[in-house]
Amino acid sequence: MEREADLKSVKIEDSFWSERQELVADVVIPYQEKILNDEVEGAEKSHAFANFRIAAGLEKGEFYGMVFQDSDVAKWLEGVAWSLANRPDAALEKRTDEIIETIEKAQQPDGYLNTYFTLKEPDHKWQNLQECHELYCAGHMMEAAAAYYEATGKDQLLKVMERMADNIAAHFGTGEGQVRGIPGHEEVELGLMRLYHVTGKEKYRALAQYFIDERGQNPDYFREESKKRGWIHWNMNPEDHNYNQTFAPVREQKKAEGHSVRAVYLYTAMADLAAQTGDKSLISACDTLWDNITQKRMYITAGIGQTAKWEGFTADYDLPNDTVYAETCAAIGLVFFARKMLSIRPSGHYADVMEQALYNGVLSGMQLDGKRFFYVNPLEVNPGISGKMPGFEHVLPQRPKWYACACCPPNVVRLVMSLGKYAWGEDPEQNTIYSHLFMGGDAESDRARIHVESGYPWDGAVRYTVHPKTQEPFTFAIRIPAWAHEKKVTLNAAALQNAEIKDGYLYLTRSWKENDIIELSLELPVRRIYANTTVRADAGATALMRGPLVYCFEGADNGPLLQELRIPQDARFTLQEIREKPLEGMKQISFAGIRVHSGDTALYSEQRPVPETVQMKAIPYFAWGNRGENQMKVWMLEI
Amino acid sequence: MEREADLKSVKIEDSFWSERQELVADVVIPYQEKILNDEVEGAEKSHAFANFRIAAGLEKGEFYGMVFQDSDVAKWLEGVAWSLANRPDAALEKRTDEIIETIEKAQQPDGYLNTYFTLKEPDHKWQNLQECHELYCAGHMMEAAAAYYEATGKDQLLKVMERMADNIAAHFGTGEGQVRGIPGHEEVELGLMRLYHVTGKEKYRALAQYFIDERGQNPDYFREESKKRGWIHWNMNPEDHNYNQTFAPVREQKKAEGHSVRAVYLYTAMADLAAQTGDKSLISACDTLWDNITQKRMYITAGIGQTAKWEGFTADYDLPNDTVYAETCAAIGLVFFARKMLSIRPSGHYADVMEQALYNGVLSGMQLDGKRFFYVNPLEVNPGISGKMPGFEHVLPQRPKWYACACCPPNVVRLVMSLGKYAWGEDPEQNTIYSHLFMGGDAESDRARIHVESGYPWDGAVRYTVHPKTQEPFTFAIRIPAWAHEKKVTLNAAALQNAEIKDGYLYLTRSWKENDIIELSLELPVRRIYANTTVRADAGATALMRGPLVYCFEGADNGPLLQELRIPQDARFTLQEIREKPLEGMKQISFAGIRVHSGDTALYSEQRPVPETVQMKAIPYFAWGNRGENQMKVWMLEI
Repeated sequence: MEREADLKSVKIEDSFWSERQELVADVVIPYQEKILNDEVEGAEKSHAFANFRIAAGLEKGEFYGMVFQDSDVAKWLEGVAWSLANRPDAALEKRTDEIIETIEKAQQPDGYLNTYFTLKEPDHKWQNLQECHELYCAGHMMEAAAAYYEATGKDQLLKVMERMADNIAAHFGTGEGQVRGIPGHEEVELGLMRLYHVTGKEKYRALAQYFIDERGQNPDYFREESKKRGWIHWNMNPEDHNYNQTFAPVREQKKAEGHSVRAVYLYTAMADLAAQTGDKSLISACDTLWDNITQKRMYITAGIGQTAKWEGFTADYDLPNDTVYAETCAAIGLVFFARKMLSIRPSGHYADVMEQALYNGVLSGMQLDGKRFFYVNPLEVNPGISGKMPGFEHVLPQRPKWYACACCPPNVVRLVMSLGKYAWGEDPEQNTIYSHLFMGGDAESDRARIHVESGYPWDGAVRYTVHPKTQEPFTFAIRIPAWAHEKKVTLNAAALQNAEIKDGYLYLTRSWKENDIIELSLELPVRRIYANTTVRADAGATALMRGPLVYCFEGADNGPLLQELRIPQDARFTLQEIREKPLEGMKQISFAGIRVHSGDTALYSEQRPVPETVQMKAIPYFAWGNRGENQMKVWMLEI
Repeated sequence: MEREADLKSVKIEDSFWSERQELVADVVIPYQEKILNDEVEGAEKSHAFANFRIAAGLEKGEFYGMVFQDSDVAKWLEGVAWSLANRPDAALEKRTDEIIETIEKAQQPDGYLNTYFTLKEPDHKWQNLQECHELYCAGHMMEAAAAYYEATGKDQLLKVMERMADNIAAHFGTGEGQVRGIPGHEEVELGLMRLYHVTGKEKYRALAQYFIDERGQNPDYFREESKKRGWIHWNMNPEDHNYNQTFAPVREQKKAEGHSVRAVYLYTAMADLAAQTGDKSLISACDTLWDNITQKRMYITAGIGQTAKWEGFTADYDLPNDTVYAETCAAIGLVFFARKMLSIRPSGHYADVMEQALYNGVLSGMQLDGKRFFYVNPLEVNPGISGKMPGFEHVLPQRPKWYACACCPPNVVRLVMSLGKYAWGEDPEQNTIYSHLFMGGDAESDRARIHVESGYPWDGAVRYTVHPKTQEPFTFAIRIPAWAHEKKVTLNAAALQNAEIKDGYLYLTRSWKENDIIELSLELPVRRIYANTTVRADAGATALMRGPLVYCFEGADNGPLLQELRIPQDARFTLQEIREKPLEGMKQISFAGIRVHSGDTALYSEQRPVPETVQMKAIPYFAWGNRGENQMKVWMLEI
C-alpha cells in the first residue's frame, strides 16, 4: 500500500512553496499564537489558551468562547508541529511543550478532555453530539498529538490523547451499556486514524471504524438524542439528515451531501480506513463519492460547496460562480480525501485534483502577505453586490482579517507546513517511491534520497537527482498530469523510450546509480477549459488554465465591466512576467480580446452591442484580490 | 390635463382581453368571495368577512387573521366594483351591498374603521404605523369605495370612507396636537387621491399631499414611534430607511429603493398629485424615479424588484434572472405609476412601459385557467433548483393556488377589470381623446363614441371607427409604440401623409364625420432585444419580443438543458399558431437554432462543446408554466 511520506524525511526547498512556508512560519503561526493568548490589540477575544489554564487549575476564571474553542489550540498545535518538522525553533518548541503540559493538567482523571464541558457544563458531557463538538475537538487534538510526536518525538500529548481515545472507546460503541453515538461534525474519525498510524494500535482503527460504520445506521439518532437530553445548544435541526451525512449508512451514500467540510473529513477517514483494510464495499463508497464530487459538484478551482446556507453541496451541475461557498477548509478537505485515495490506488486523477485544489481553491484562501484569509472563494466577484446584497453577503470581495474567522487560516497553516506528505509517498511492498507533486527539495527514504529542482508551476521543467541507498532495483514513479499532452522525459540526458505511463504515473524501475538524473519537461501552454454543458452557470464560457493554475480576470488589469469581455476562439495567448508588486514574478496571460459595448445608454435596445479589440490580461486565480477591491471573473464568454 | 376614462364609458370587447375579463368575473371573483367567506374546503382560513360581522356586532367571535386582513375585503370589493361596471350582476351587487352595510356597522362612531384594532387591540390604535397597516387598509377601502361609487352610483361605502378619511385628517398632520405620522406601507396616499377624484373635495388631496410631503422629513420617525409605544407587532427594523422609502424627503429621492410595491404605490400617488397640482419639484422627482426604474432597475418583462429579501430593489443594472423577485403586484404598481405619468404628460414612453408590464410581468401572474397565481415572476426557472435551493426558495416553477397568497390575485383582478382606464384618456382643455392601448370595444365621451376592432397583440391591425357627438373639431391621439418601426395609418382608406407623431402619439385633429375610420397597421416582426452591457446577467444574450410580448423558451418545446441553446445571429424567425391547449391560438416563434453539447461526460474538458442545428420554439412569456414543471428561460445566448 502506498503511504504518505514521514514529514521529517522531506525537505521543501522550492521556488514557489518555500516562500509560502516561510510566510506561514514567520507571520501566520506567531500571529495565531498571539491571538490564542489574547495579545492582539483590537482582535476578537479568543481565550483559548486561558480556557486550558483555568481547566488545569493554574488560573482562576471562567470559560469563554465557542463550544469548539479548544480546537483552535489543537489546530495551532498541529501547524506548529509541522512547522518544527520543517524548521526547528527551540523557543517555539519550549513554549509549545508548556502548553502541552497545561493541556495534560486540564485532562480529567478519566481521560476526558474538553474545557468547555469541564468548566461550564460538567453535567452535560456527551449528551449533545450533534451540536457540541466534543468529538470534533478531540479529533483535532489527536491530529495535533500525532503530528507533534512525528515532528519532535515527544509523546506527552500523544499519551493524553490516547487516554482521551480510550475514554471515548469506553463510552461509545455497539457493546453492552455503550452509547451508539456519532459526531455531529466528523473529524474524530480522522484523528483516530492518525493515532492508529503513529501508535500502530488496532483499537484506534477499530474505534474510527465504529464511528464510520455507525453513521447513518439510524438516521434519527440526533432527533432521539435531542429528545432524551431536553436542552439545546445552537438549535440545529436534528431532522436534517443531509447536513451531517446521516441520511444513509456511508456505504450506501451515492452523492456528496450537506456541509462540505464535514463531508470531506468523513470521506477522508473512510478512504484512509479503506486503504488500510482493503474493505471493498468501503472503497467502492469512496469511489462513488469521489466521482460525484469531482465529476458533478466541483468548481474548476477544486472549490466545493455551492451554497452558503448549509456551507455545502446543492445538486449535480449546480455550480453558480458568484454565490458559491467553496470554503477554503473544504478545498483543504478535498486535498486530504485525494491524498487518501492515492493510498487506495495510485492514480494520477487523485493527484491531479489534489494539485488543482492546492494551487487554486486552497491557496486563494490566503492573501499574498499571509495577513488576511478567505473562508469563501468565489469564481466571480462584483463590488457593490458581492459581500453586500442578499444571497451575496458571504462572498467578500476582499479577504477579511484573521481574527474574524478561526477555522480556515489554521487549516491553511497545517496544509502548507505538511506539503511533503502530499508530494511524496512510498509503497514498501511494491518497492516504489512516488512523486505526486512537483516541488523542489529533498525526499529521503530507506531506498534513496531524491533531490528535486523545479520552477513549477511557472515552468514545467522538473529535475530529479537520485542518490540511492541500495544496490537493489526499485521503482520511482513520477506523476504525469493528465493535462500534460506534450512532455519530454530524459534519464541521464537520454530520451526515455517505451517508459511505462500507467494511470497517470511514469514508472521507472532500475538499479539506481548515484546522481542518476531524470528530467521531466512538461509543456505548459494556456489551455481553454469548457464546463460540461449541463452546467448552467458556465454556458458559452471558457476558463483559462496553465499547468495546474486556473487563471482569472480582474478589473485592475482589464478595466470595469468584465462581463463585456470575450475570449475570441482564435485568440493567441502570450505569457508575461509581472514586474509589479504584489504579483511580482508571476506569469500573466495576455491576448487580444474583444470588448462588446452597448451603442447607447438604453437599458434594452435592438442594437447589438458593438465589439472592439482590446488587450486582455489574466492572472493566476490564487493571486486575485491582492490589489484592492475590484471585479473578478474566472469564466469568460467565448466569441 | 389628461385624465383616465370613466370606466363605465368604456366597453372592452377584445379578442385577447375579453376572455381574461370573463375568466376573472366567472372564476376568480366568485372563488375569492368564497375564500373570504371561508367556504372553500381545504383553503387557509380567511375570516375576513367574519371579522367585519363581529366588529359590526352581528356575530359573536374573535378577530382572526393578519393585521391587514381587512384589505382582502377591500381589494375584493374594488374588483367587484370594476366587474359590475363591465358586466352588471344584480345578485352579486346585492351581496356586495350587504357587505358594505356590515362594513358601515363596523365603523366606530368617530369614523375609525379597522377590525383588527377594534376587536383585538383597541388601546393600540395609530401607535404602530410602521408595522400595522391601518392606513394601508384604509387606502384600499377608499379605492374600493370610489370604484363602487363610480360603478354603481351608490355612495354608502364612499361616505364611510370619507368619515374614515376625516378621522385620519384629524389625527395626522403638522397642526397643533396632531401626529406627524406616515404609513409603513404606502397606499393611503392613492386611496385619498381616489377619494379626491370622485368627491372633488380638496381636503382629501391635501391629506394625500401631507403624507407624501411628510415622508422622509424625519428618517427616524419609525424608530421614535417604536420607542414611544414600547411594543412590537412583526419586529420590523425601524432603522431600515430604504425599505419604506423614508431615507429622504420624496423630492430628494434619486433612486427607487426598498420594497418595490411600497415604492411604486408611493410614486403613483406622487404622480397623481403632481399631475393635479403641476408641482414642478414633485414632477421632477417622479421623472427621476421613473427613469431610475425603467432605465436601470427593470426587467424586460417590466417586472421590478430584484431581491426576495426585502421584496424590492437592489442596485442599478443588477438584474439576476433566476433569483429575481418581480412580484406581480409590483408590475401592477408600475402600471399604476405609468398611468399617472401619462396624466403629467402624454408621452408614448409611459404607455409603452405600461403595456410592457401589462402583457408580460402582470399577465404572467395568472395561470391561463385563472386558478393559480404567481407572486414571483422569474425570467429563468430551473426545476430542482428553483423553489428549492437556497436563494431560490421564492422562485416557484409552478403557480401556487390562490389561498396561499392573498395579495397578488386580487390586484390582478382589479387591474384586468379596470383596463378601460388604462386604455383610454381625455384631455378636456386640449380637446383631445387619447387611445393609449389597443383593445377592441367602445369608448364613449362627450365628444364621440369610438369603436375599436383589433387582433392585438397577435396582429398589428387596429381599426378605429369614430361616431362623433359634436360638429366641433377635436383631436384624436393614438399611441404609436416606439418599437413600431414599420407602420401604416389610413384615414378612410387614404394613406395619412404628414400626420403629426409627437412623443409617441399620432395626433389627428379634424371635424369628425360619422363612421370616419382610422386604420393602423403595425408591422410585428420578431425583435431581438439586447440588455445594456452594464447588466451582467444578460451578457452575450438576446431576448425575443414581438409587439408588446416578451417571448421565452420552455423545456416543453425545446427539450432539457436550455442553457445549451443558442440563437444564431442570422436566424430567420417564423410564426406559427399553436393548435394545442392550453396555449391554443397563441403565436409561437420558430427557427433553426443551435444546440451545443459536451463531447463527453467530463465536468471540465478541453473539448469545445459541439454545435448542432435544432429547431427552437419560443412562446409568449405570460403563458409560461401552464404545461407542467419545466425549465424556462427568457434570455438566450446569441451565437
